[in-house]
Amino acid sequence: MTSDVEQIQTVVKAVEAAMEAKDVDRLLARYTADAVTFDLAPPLRRVGQEALDAEGLAAWFAGFDGPVHYAVVDLEVTAGEDVAFCHALNRMASTPNGSPEGFVMWFRMTAGLRKEDGRWRIAHEHTSTPFHMDGSFRAATDLEP
Amino acid sequence: MTSDVEQIQTVVKAVEAAMEAKDVDRLLARYTADAVTFDLAPPLRRVGQEALDAEGLAAWFAGFDGPVHYAVVDLEVTAGEDVAFCHALNRMASTPNGSPEGFVMWFRMTAGLRKEDGRWRIAHEHTSTPFHMDGSFRAATDLEP
Repeated sequence: MTSDVEQIQTVVKAVEAAMEAKDVDRLLARYTADAVTFDLAPPLRRVGQEALDAEGLAAWFAGFDGPVHYAVVDLEVTAGEDVAFCHALNRMASTPNGSPEGFVMWFRMTAGLRKEDGRWRIAHEHTSTPFHMDGSFRAATDLEP
Repeated sequence: MTSDVEQIQTVVKAVEAAMEAKDVDRLLARYTADAVTFDLAPPLRRVGQEALDAEGLAAWFAGFDGPVHYAVVDLEVTAGEDVAFCHALNRMASTPNGSPEGFVMWFRMTAGLRKEDGRWRIAHEHTSTPFHMDGSFRAATDLEP
């Protein structure tokens, strides 16, 4: 039998293959219907249907010529019986349409999960970069672990 | 008897009084010894003693003339028996030393908690602002809920 930690690793890491395949349904199936997300881009918070925006996600995918490479690194899971949280450092690499060159960015990911009907789903996800406090307030998208 | 959710609310919201009092010990007592933090400022991640840096925190407090006002807003807690997570939008307001005027900033906070010896502590904390994807890569420190 697969342990809770292994099941959670599978749910969280499913983002890797889903991003590569630009598979919106597979990505969104990982979340609870009432999910709350704190994303890389504004606004501060998205709730429920606003967080699970299939059209917005498809439009975002359409902005990249080739695949979106995505890796979940150093994933650490803390699981109880039906509530869990985890954190990782994620690496994304892609090339926006019409851009002469691609980008690579590392960012932090934290997720809170609930087990419902025997299945772990993401109820909360927080992704971010820190920002430079040197007066520039520039997002630190150039950091590496 | 106080519920787990109430106990967690108390631990998380203790940041409010501790910030106002610039009380380093009270702030750090809320965390597990192996806490992992993703902070507003670089680096990407801090672990254990690096995350629980009393000297660094004291130096940070010393950079403000007056009090550091801090509020945890819209705190939502999901608690199991011994693992929990929560998220909130936090508001910080203060005046850096020598600055002609103060600042107000809203940011997102996610925490993962473990119950050890009957007491809830923060094992992971992630604070951030999103950043503008208009090419400026500027941290969105001007957002309000």
